[in-house]
Amino acid sequence: MKPNLYDRKCGSRQVLDRIGDRWSVLVVLTLADGPRRYGELAERIDGVSQKMLTQTLRGLERDGLATRTVHAAVPPRVDYELTDLGRSLLTLLAGLEAWATDHLPEVEAARDRYDTRA
Amino acid sequence: MKPNLYDRKCGSRQVLDRIGDRWSVLVVLTLADGPRRYGELAERIDGVSQKMLTQTLRGLERDGLATRTVHAAVPPRVDYELTDLGRSLLTLLAGLEAWATDHLPEVEAARDRYDTRA
Repeated sequence: MKPNLYDRKCGSRQVLDRIGDRWSVLVVLTLADGPRRYGELAERIDGVSQKMLTQTLRGLERDGLATRTVHAAVPPRVDYELTDLGRSLLTLLAGLEAWATDHLPEVEAARDRYDTRA
Repeated sequence: MKPNLYDRKCGSRQVLDRIGDRWSVLVVLTLADGPRRYGELAERIDGVSQKMLTQTLRGLERDGLATRTVHAAVPPRVDYELTDLGRSLLTLLAGLEAWATDHLPEVEAARDRYDTRA
Protein backbone atom coordinates (compact mmCIF):
# COMPACT_ATOMS: atom_id res chain seq x y z
CA MET A 1 0.00 0.00 0.00
CA LYS A 2 1.29 3.44 -0.95
CA PRO A 3 1.81 5.71 2.07
CA ASN A 4 -0.91 8.36 2.20
CA LEU A 5 -0.11 11.49 4.16
CA TYR A 6 -3.75 12.54 4.19
CA ASP A 7 -4.94 9.41 5.99
CA ARG A 8 -4.64 9.91 9.74
CA LYS A 9 -4.11 6.20 10.29
CA CYS A 10 -1.14 6.09 7.91
CA GLY A 11 2.32 5.98 9.47
CA SER A 12 3.60 8.66 7.11
CA ARG A 13 1.10 11.10 8.60
CA GLN A 14 2.45 10.29 12.06
CA VAL A 15 5.96 10.93 10.79
CA LEU A 16 4.83 14.30 9.41
CA ASP A 17 3.27 15.08 12.79
CA ARG A 18 6.72 14.63 14.31
CA ILE A 19 8.78 16.55 11.76
CA GLY A 20 6.09 19.17 11.34
CA ASP A 21 6.15 20.03 15.03
CA ARG A 22 7.72 23.31 16.01
CA TRP A 23 9.54 21.98 19.08
CA SER A 24 10.94 18.99 17.23
CA VAL A 25 12.18 21.30 14.46
CA LEU A 26 13.92 23.57 16.97
CA VAL A 27 15.48 20.68 18.91
CA VAL A 28 16.79 18.97 15.77
CA LEU A 29 18.26 22.26 14.51
CA THR A 30 19.89 22.88 17.91
CA LEU A 31 21.51 19.43 17.76
CA ALA A 32 22.91 20.10 14.26
CA ASP A 33 26.38 21.01 15.57
CA GLY A 34 26.77 18.05 17.90
CA PRO A 35 25.56 16.60 21.23
CA ARG A 36 23.88 18.91 23.71
CA ARG A 37 22.87 18.51 27.34
CA TYR A 38 19.27 18.87 28.40
CA GLY A 39 20.01 22.19 30.11
CA GLU A 40 21.69 23.60 27.00
CA LEU A 41 18.61 22.76 24.91
CA ALA A 42 16.31 24.35 27.49
CA GLU A 43 18.39 27.50 27.49
CA ARG A 44 18.69 27.78 23.71
CA ILE A 45 15.04 27.23 22.89
CA ASP A 46 13.18 30.18 24.32
CA GLY A 47 9.67 29.49 25.57
CA VAL A 48 9.81 25.68 25.73
CA SER A 49 8.49 24.27 29.01
CA GLN A 50 10.31 21.46 30.77
CA LYS A 51 7.34 19.19 30.09
CA MET A 52 7.31 19.96 26.35
CA LEU A 53 11.08 19.60 26.00
CA THR A 54 11.07 16.23 27.79
CA GLN A 55 8.14 15.04 25.67
CA THR A 56 9.78 16.26 22.44
CA LEU A 57 13.09 14.56 23.24
CA ARG A 58 11.32 11.32 24.10
CA GLY A 59 9.42 11.50 20.80
CA LEU A 60 12.62 12.11 18.81
CA GLU A 61 14.30 9.20 20.61
CA ARG A 62 11.33 6.89 20.02
CA ASP A 63 11.27 7.77 16.31
CA GLY A 64 14.98 7.03 15.98
CA LEU A 65 15.97 10.65 15.26
CA ALA A 66 18.05 11.25 18.40
CA THR A 67 19.83 9.22 21.06
CA ARG A 68 20.00 9.84 24.80
CA THR A 69 23.25 8.95 26.56
CA VAL A 70 23.72 8.96 30.32
CA HIS A 71 27.35 9.54 31.31
CA ALA A 72 28.57 8.24 34.65
CA ALA A 73 29.38 11.39 36.58
CA VAL A 74 28.25 13.14 39.73
CA PRO A 75 25.66 14.44 38.99
CA PRO A 76 25.00 12.17 35.96
CA ARG A 77 25.33 13.99 32.63
CA VAL A 78 22.70 13.33 29.97
CA ASP A 79 23.52 14.12 26.34
CA TYR A 80 21.25 14.14 23.32
CA GLU A 81 22.63 13.61 19.84
CA LEU A 82 21.17 13.21 16.35
CA THR A 83 21.25 9.79 14.71
CA ASP A 84 22.03 9.41 10.99
CA LEU A 85 18.28 9.41 10.41
CA GLY A 86 17.95 12.65 12.36
CA ARG A 87 20.83 14.21 10.43
CA SER A 88 19.09 13.33 7.16
CA LEU A 89 16.41 15.84 8.16
CA LEU A 90 18.79 18.76 8.64
CA THR A 91 18.84 20.04 5.06
CA LEU A 92 15.04 20.11 4.93
CA LEU A 93 14.67 21.82 8.29
CA ALA A 94 17.39 24.34 7.49
CA GLY A 95 15.32 25.09 4.39
CA LEU A 96 12.29 25.82 6.57
CA GLU A 97 14.41 28.02 8.82
CA ALA A 98 15.74 29.95 5.82
CA TRP A 99 12.23 30.36 4.39
CA ALA A 100 10.93 31.66 7.73
CA THR A 101 13.66 34.28 8.02
CA ASP A 102 13.77 35.24 4.31
CA HIS A 103 10.01 35.74 3.99
CA LEU A 104 9.40 37.31 7.37
CA PRO A 105 8.86 40.84 5.95
CA GLU A 106 6.25 39.59 3.45
CA VAL A 107 4.41 37.60 6.11
CA GLU A 108 4.42 40.54 8.52
CA ALA A 109 3.12 42.89 5.80
CA ALA A 110 0.33 40.41 5.00
CA ARG A 111 -0.61 40.22 8.69
CA ASP A 112 -0.79 44.00 8.95
CA ARG A 113 -3.07 44.16 5.89
CA TYR A 114 -5.31 41.39 7.26
CA ASP A 115 -5.59 42.90 10.72
CA THR A 116 -6.34 46.38 9.36
CA ARG A 117 -9.03 45.02 7.07
CA ALA A 118 -10.74 42.96 9.76
CA MET B 1 18.48 42.82 14.00
CA LYS B 2 19.06 39.34 12.62
CA PRO B 3 15.96 37.12 12.84
CA ASN B 4 16.38 34.53 15.59
CA LEU B 5 14.24 31.43 15.30
CA TYR B 6 14.99 30.45 18.89
CA ASP B 7 13.54 33.64 20.36
CA ARG B 8 9.82 33.22 20.90
CA LYS B 9 9.22 36.93 20.41
CA CYS B 10 10.90 36.95 16.99
CA GLY B 11 8.63 37.02 13.96
CA SER B 12 10.61 34.26 12.26
CA ARG B 13 9.65 31.90 15.08
CA GLN B 14 6.00 32.76 14.50
CA VAL B 15 6.47 32.03 10.80
CA LEU B 16 7.98 28.66 11.68
CA ASP B 17 5.01 27.97 13.95
CA ARG B 18 2.79 28.41 10.90
CA ILE B 19 4.79 26.40 8.37
CA GLY B 20 5.75 23.81 10.97
CA ASP B 21 2.12 23.04 11.74
CA ARG B 22 0.75 19.75 10.50
CA TRP B 23 -2.62 21.13 9.35
CA SER B 24 -1.05 24.06 7.52
CA VAL B 25 1.32 21.66 5.76
CA LEU B 26 -1.54 19.41 4.66
CA VAL B 27 -3.71 22.33 3.49
CA VAL B 28 -0.89 23.93 1.49
CA LEU B 29 -0.06 20.58 -0.14
CA THR B 30 -3.74 20.03 -0.98
CA LEU B 31 -3.87 23.45 -2.67
CA ALA B 32 -0.79 22.65 -4.77
CA ASP B 33 -2.83 21.72 -7.86
CA GLY B 34 -5.14 24.72 -7.79
CA PRO B 35 -8.09 26.27 -5.93
CA ARG B 36 -10.20 24.05 -3.69
CA ARG B 37 -13.50 24.57 -1.93
CA TYR B 38 -13.78 24.28 1.83
CA GLY B 39 -15.66 21.01 1.55
CA GLU B 40 -13.03 19.49 -0.74
CA LEU B 41 -10.31 20.33 1.77
CA ALA B 42 -12.33 18.86 4.64
CA GLU B 43 -12.86 15.65 2.67
CA ARG B 44 -9.24 15.28 1.56
CA ILE B 45 -7.61 15.87 4.95
CA ASP B 46 -8.67 12.98 7.13
CA GLY B 47 -9.12 13.79 10.79
CA VAL B 48 -9.23 17.58 10.63
CA SER B 49 -12.12 19.09 12.60
CA GLN B 50 -14.18 21.92 11.13
CA LYS B 51 -12.82 24.21 13.82
CA MET B 52 -9.18 23.36 13.06
CA LEU B 53 -9.66 23.65 9.31
CA THR B 54 -11.33 27.06 9.62
CA GLN B 55 -8.61 28.25 11.99
CA THR B 56 -5.84 26.92 9.72
CA LEU B 57 -7.31 28.59 6.63
CA ARG B 58 -7.70 31.87 8.47
CA GLY B 59 -4.06 31.67 9.60
CA LEU B 60 -2.83 30.95 6.07
CA GLU B 61 -4.89 33.85 4.76
CA ARG B 62 -3.62 36.20 7.47
CA ASP B 63 -0.01 35.23 6.75
CA GLY B 64 -0.49 35.89 3.04
CA LEU B 65 -0.06 32.25 2.00
CA ALA B 66 -3.58 31.69 0.67
CA THR B 67 -6.54 33.75 -0.52
CA ARG B 68 -10.23 33.23 0.13
CA THR B 69 -12.64 34.10 -2.67
CA VAL B 70 -16.41 34.17 -2.33
CA HIS B 71 -18.18 33.56 -5.66
CA ALA B 72 -21.67 34.92 -6.15
CA ALA B 73 -23.79 31.82 -6.48
CA VAL B 74 -26.65 30.17 -4.64
CA PRO B 75 -25.42 28.90 -2.25
CA PRO B 76 -22.25 31.09 -2.30
CA ARG B 77 -19.13 29.17 -3.30
CA VAL B 78 -15.94 29.80 -1.32
CA ASP B 79 -12.60 28.92 -2.88
CA TYR B 80 -9.15 28.85 -1.32
CA GLU B 81 -6.04 29.28 -3.44
CA LEU B 82 -2.31 29.62 -2.77
CA THR B 83 -0.66 33.00 -3.29
CA ASP B 84 2.79 33.27 -4.87
CA LEU B 85 4.19 33.34 -1.33
CA GLY B 86 2.28 30.16 -0.51
CA ARG B 87 3.51 28.49 -3.72
CA SER B 88 7.09 29.33 -2.75
CA LEU B 89 6.66 26.89 0.14
CA LEU B 90 5.62 23.94 -2.01
CA THR B 91 9.07 22.58 -2.81
CA LEU B 92 10.03 22.57 0.87
CA LEU B 93 6.80 20.94 2.00
CA ALA B 94 6.93 18.36 -0.78
CA GLY B 95 10.41 17.57 0.58
CA LEU B 96 8.93 16.95 4.04
CA GLU B 97 6.23 14.76 2.50
CA ALA B 98 8.84 12.74 0.60
CA TRP B 99 11.01 12.37 3.73
CA ALA B 100 8.00 11.17 5.74
CA THR B 101 7.07 8.49 3.21
CA ASP B 102 10.65 7.45 2.32
CA HIS B 103 11.78 7.01 5.93
CA LEU B 104 8.59 5.52 7.30
CA PRO B 105 10.04 1.98 7.60
CA GLU B 106 13.05 3.24 9.58
CA VAL B 107 10.89 5.32 11.92
CA GLU B 108 8.50 2.42 12.49
CA ALA B 109 11.39 0.04 13.22
CA ALA B 110 12.83 2.55 15.72
CA ARG B 111 9.44 2.84 17.44
CA ASP B 112 9.17 -0.93 17.76
CA ARG B 113 12.63 -1.09 19.32
CA TYR B 114 11.84 1.74 21.74
CA ASP B 115 8.50 0.31 22.81
CA THR B 116 9.93 -3.19 23.32
CA ARG B 117 12.79 -1.82 25.41
CA ALA B 118 10.57 0.33 27.62
